[in-house]
Amino acid sequence: MSYRIDNLQYCNWSENIFRINNKAKLDAVHVTIAYHEDFDEVQNNINQWQVYFNDFKDLIFHGKTYKDIEKAHKENKTAIFFGFQNCSPIEDNISLVETVHNMGTVFMQLTYNNQSLLATGCYEENDSGVTRMGKEVIKEMNRVGIIIDMSHSAEKSTLDAMQISEKPIVVTHANPSFWHEVKRNKSEILLKELSQSKGMIGLSLYPHHLLNGSNCSLESFCEMVAKTAEIMGTECIGIGSDLCLGQPDTVVEWMRNGTWTKNRDYGEGSADNAAFPRQPEWFKDATGFNNLEDGLVNVGFNKEEVDGILGNNWFNFYKENIF
Amino acid sequence: MSYRIDNLQYCNWSENIFRINNKAKLDAVHVTIAYHEDFDEVQNNINQWQVYFNDFKDLIFHGKTYKDIEKAHKENKTAIFFGFQNCSPIEDNISLVETVHNMGTVFMQLTYNNQSLLATGCYEENDSGVTRMGKEVIKEMNRVGIIIDMSHSAEKSTLDAMQISEKPIVVTHANPSFWHEVKRNKSEILLKELSQSKGMIGLSLYPHHLLNGSNCSLESFCEMVAKTAEIMGTECIGIGSDLCLGQPDTVVEWMRNGTWTKNRDYGEGSADNAAFPRQPEWFKDATGFNNLEDGLVNVGFNKEEVDGILGNNWFNFYKENIF
Repeated sequence: MSYRIDNLQYCNWSENIFRINNKAKLDAVHVTIAYHEDFDEVQNNINQWQVYFNDFKDLIFHGKTYKDIEKAHKENKTAIFFGFQNCSPIEDNISLVETVHNMGTVFMQLTYNNQSLLATGCYEENDSGVTRMGKEVIKEMNRVGIIIDMSHSAEKSTLDAMQISEKPIVVTHANPSFWHEVKRNKSEILLKELSQSKGMIGLSLYPHHLLNGSNCSLESFCEMVAKTAEIMGTECIGIGSDLCLGQPDTVVEWMRNGTWTKNRDYGEGSADNAAFPRQPEWFKDATGFNNLEDGLVNVGFNKEEVDGILGNNWFNFYKENIF
Repeated sequence: MSYRIDNLQYCNWSENIFRINNKAKLDAVHVTIAYHEDFDEVQNNINQWQVYFNDFKDLIFHGKTYKDIEKAHKENKTAIFFGFQNCSPIEDNISLVETVHNMGTVFMQLTYNNQSLLATGCYEENDSGVTRMGKEVIKEMNRVGIIIDMSHSAEKSTLDAMQISEKPIVVTHANPSFWHEVKRNKSEILLKELSQSKGMIGLSLYPHHLLNGSNCSLESFCEMVAKTAEIMGTECIGIGSDLCLGQPDTVVEWMRNGTWTKNRDYGEGSADNAAFPRQPEWFKDATGFNNLEDGLVNVGFNKEEVDGILGNNWFNFYKENIF
């Protein structure tokens, strides 16, 4: 059995995008339903997803456990798993961890770029690691079954989270910094620790995480995957494309600025390059998984390894941890 | 003219307590209206204060600038100034800084013991200093006129705040750690920097901040004031008693635990000493200002210095910064 899973998308959702994901044979997509939203706002987002699930029931449904990936595969649909790129929806209330899990959330980042109540984001100058509340929330996430995602967190915080968590943690969408050194990408030390703790990384196709950005070649990306596999092994590597299809540039501005500053922050971009970056030609949308398949074969991965990277590794992680 | 100011109380407010403060000739009290409250909850607390201002208009009124201290003195009333011991009321929204100022808030702590979105609290293991959002919020607090209070913050965060803020910052309620070394008390370095930047410290009468706790002697306290004055000069020393008269022990439990942990945290207390501590005999309530007056004379302060410490120094700070 081979599954295809994209473990991070934040598209401007529409029938068209669900059809593209279906055409790409994605059995599961982990979708972001919160960047800066508080609890009430995330409920509104979930309400909107109920509308999508109802309107496009031939294409998608709400995924809650690994069994929904099997179901989606059988029915040629895509199981949609909810996740937060920030801890803002639990506000300052540890009880909301269980509540958001009951609402169907299976991934939560402890931080989004900035310092949160739980840990330090990768854009902060100093990283004090997982906080007092963070330690408590990690235990609670372990208890209720929400996976800790450190994609946008700083290094010490991420290493702390691995130590504190009794379950494997993940980086749903980032690349190794040996290939492209930016704040969002991850060090070799971190990758090694992640694989030793049975965690996962979803490699990102977002141009700011790619060597040469929008002009990154498929070959360069796949060579990076091969080198990452040398460091981590193949089994803990998946894809988290970070596709933001159809989003207007006002959305990336909101992602970067939320309501935390009155100045303009450009995040991974810059004043003269503030927009959403153009996707590489070979990964304009999820059908790019087919190009990845070819590219990974070309750098020497065997079929089982390619299937692992394109979905089975994430499936196995879900089977172990989301049930 | 000599004013008496207690720059921190969090009592279980009642006519009786307002009468005690009036009897103690307090012209102004800075009252805490938020520990863990979010924006909506702090609005409810302000609504409750509107009821007090209406019901006890012969004793108290809402103070907004230093002129209200002059007015209170003339009318034998106490001006009540609002402050937060946490940044929770502004949530993650910098625009709320101006909003809470418009609602009459003049002091805000950047943290309450734990890490916040703005800075690190004094109970955290590591102190990463003022965060990205913290820097923006300090600028905004400077702009709208809310005073930065670092009473419950960690050292680097406090030193950062002094550097970043264009206006003096304060420690409304704490003591020097040379006298009693606990997490809430402040180092000599910090005290020196505070005085050099024209900030203020309000010395605390809360037993956990006192040498020998509830059994601290008036002499010991006043000798500490004298030594603090050698370090900082006298002009930046005031009182912030931290009186919590009439509060049930459920309140101190809530102050310590809020909603951030499912375990029990005892803060400055311990499992077998979890309750609000007993006040020293010589400072059972604000009428203890009279004992302080005697005690400060006995350790060698002259009348002007005593008047300064018991209120005029805070008055001068308000005159410079809250207008």
